[in-house]
Amino acid sequence: MLQMEMIWNARSVLSGIINKTPLIPAGEVQGGSLYLKAECLQKTGAFKLRGAYYKIATLSEEEKRRGVIACSAGNHAQGVAFAARDMGIHAVICIPEGAPLSKIEATRSYGAEVVLVPGVYDDAYAEAIRLRDEHNYTFIHPFDDPAIMAGQGTIGLEILDQLEDVDVIVTAIGGGGLISGIAYAVKQLKPSCKVIGVQSEGAASMVEALRKDEIITLPHVDTIADGIKVKTAGDKTFRMCRQYVDEVVTVSESEIAEAILWLLEKQKLITEGAGAVSVAAVASGKIDVAGKKVVTLLSGGNVDVTTLERIIKHGLTAEGRVCSFSTLLHDQPNALATFLSAVSAVGVNVLEVHHDRSSMKAGVNAIRVRLVVETRNKAHIQELYAALTEQGYAVIE
Amino acid sequence: MLQMEMIWNARSVLSGIINKTPLIPAGEVQGGSLYLKAECLQKTGAFKLRGAYYKIATLSEEEKRRGVIACSAGNHAQGVAFAARDMGIHAVICIPEGAPLSKIEATRSYGAEVVLVPGVYDDAYAEAIRLRDEHNYTFIHPFDDPAIMAGQGTIGLEILDQLEDVDVIVTAIGGGGLISGIAYAVKQLKPSCKVIGVQSEGAASMVEALRKDEIITLPHVDTIADGIKVKTAGDKTFRMCRQYVDEVVTVSESEIAEAILWLLEKQKLITEGAGAVSVAAVASGKIDVAGKKVVTLLSGGNVDVTTLERIIKHGLTAEGRVCSFSTLLHDQPNALATFLSAVSAVGVNVLEVHHDRSSMKAGVNAIRVRLVVETRNKAHIQELYAALTEQGYAVIE
Repeated sequence: MLQMEMIWNARSVLSGIINKTPLIPAGEVQGGSLYLKAECLQKTGAFKLRGAYYKIATLSEEEKRRGVIACSAGNHAQGVAFAARDMGIHAVICIPEGAPLSKIEATRSYGAEVVLVPGVYDDAYAEAIRLRDEHNYTFIHPFDDPAIMAGQGTIGLEILDQLEDVDVIVTAIGGGGLISGIAYAVKQLKPSCKVIGVQSEGAASMVEALRKDEIITLPHVDTIADGIKVKTAGDKTFRMCRQYVDEVVTVSESEIAEAILWLLEKQKLITEGAGAVSVAAVASGKIDVAGKKVVTLLSGGNVDVTTLERIIKHGLTAEGRVCSFSTLLHDQPNALATFLSAVSAVGVNVLEVHHDRSSMKAGVNAIRVRLVVETRNKAHIQELYAALTEQGYAVIE
Repeated sequence: MLQMEMIWNARSVLSGIINKTPLIPAGEVQGGSLYLKAECLQKTGAFKLRGAYYKIATLSEEEKRRGVIACSAGNHAQGVAFAARDMGIHAVICIPEGAPLSKIEATRSYGAEVVLVPGVYDDAYAEAIRLRDEHNYTFIHPFDDPAIMAGQGTIGLEILDQLEDVDVIVTAIGGGGLISGIAYAVKQLKPSCKVIGVQSEGAASMVEALRKDEIITLPHVDTIADGIKVKTAGDKTFRMCRQYVDEVVTVSESEIAEAILWLLEKQKLITEGAGAVSVAAVASGKIDVAGKKVVTLLSGGNVDVTTLERIIKHGLTAEGRVCSFSTLLHDQPNALATFLSAVSAVGVNVLEVHHDRSSMKAGVNAIRVRLVVETRNKAHIQELYAALTEQGYAVIE
């Protein structure tokens, strides 16, 4: 089981290897003072390096000589690859074939041997176990291992060091390794500090396990927060959460997208879905933070740029800052120019114009025009629609 | 003129108001150890708050009572607005009418009175001067003022404090206030440390001034780094740069876009164009950094999300990670599916398919198909084109 001594030891092993990431003040949110523990600024872009590095460092010389294996398409893969290279150890990472190119390239760039496995995560996992048995590699579990928890627990020490009078620490839960390490450390050193976990509504395996008081396997998980898309909580982490975590809440996909956008625009930090759920929980009022000093952990920033673009669009739409609608225009000179003037008059910025003569919904003498426009908020969209309707334009949402 | 005493004083005035921004290690670049001084994580999203706050703090009680005025569509506007609100002072900001909605909203959100002026920057400036004379406001210049330089110079103190053995500091130059303050402070305290300025090729007013040894006004400036799009260097800042800055280099638009993308993907930090030119200069080999400890200043992160999307696309294309091409297919069942299989076989990820039956360039029985695909690099694109050509597809770039 996890011991405080292991976390102190992990801190000393990791010192000089990992970044002591900054704790960034981010103003008032929901009546509390918000701070961001920016593990997205960690080497490899996520906290996973801490646990992976410490776990590998604790292996025997013989185990190190034989090499390590892991199964992941994400931050654990990069953490294991980076740590192994740093210690001169051979690392094999099994990745499901459909994983984003950028994640595969990043793992390769840290010198690991990447095995692309056809199928989904479970297939890659089976192949990793097969290769482990064949080559006598040590399997590095992503979360259900006390050494992994100890590595992640060093974040708890850093937070207490950076903000002595912290009242609440909020962090994502996937398998549960991160929160187990942090909650354990914090409850030993400052029991009055609350530790609250956050899952996505679409992958609430720990929430369900705690509610039923037994580990369950979700039949289906779906969330943009792929770093915490876990069907089954760990045995050890479940017990840790039951004992040390004060509360676990869930957030919706839109709340996650809005948090990513807020962090990007207002805090200038790139977070992946899992990295933003803690902020999403505070911003959406799921946690009582009024009058408190709240640290939200930004667990990682490894998001594919194309995914990021989609999330930004979703967030902008959810906030009413981008909207898309169509109208029908008579096919006559100047019709489009007149229409666009009417749109601009409301202070709306036109981003895209799609001018479609062959739409089946338009009459023979009509053109369907779809606009994508930039607006201030939802009220501004209503103002735009009202102005256009008044001038005789049909607004088709 | 600027005195060291003013910079020490600025540090004490700003203490507890501004963030002491983190200095983030970013690995090896061009043989040097790169560190990022992340002023994009400053309150208001940019360093400008430092100078604006210190300048306003030095005003007399009578001047404070009358209020301040500035002209800017960018970070200076937000810095003045934030500082004035913090000190309970009325602030008026003149902004040219075409400025992005998000910048106008941000300035308003800090409580400033925003005056939208039809026309360009010069028109907004003229209106600011008119309002200053009419209301007896104090005009807060964005750079050509020793108090402004002193505020920005506190960054130099922080860098020396955070990395004692720094060899080179690289920072953007717009009007020159930032580099003047930093270079002055650094040359007083650690003369061996080089201070190097960076401008965009499309707005190299300080480079030209130093070359001709006189201030010049560029007839035309054009760059995505709008924060340093300055036609004329300041009088005072020009003299400071001549005396204290070791070298000034320029970077291209593509180099800036690639630096923004690198910072976003690898360092998880959002920077605006001006905020990334320092990294662009080091990454593109414009500065000799081999074996040295180099601090690049990320001056700000206030970039419109729609602009950011454009820059990301540009950067991905420049690196060969996204490409767009067309081909002609016979209009028969399965033609598109067969073509897409050929594309996927090379390990390319399809992002967009545009299937255009009515293109004038296609024959009656042909369809023009345009794809946007995700590739690993430029060599991968050539591999794709070669494979398609070999299978009889015309590749139209």
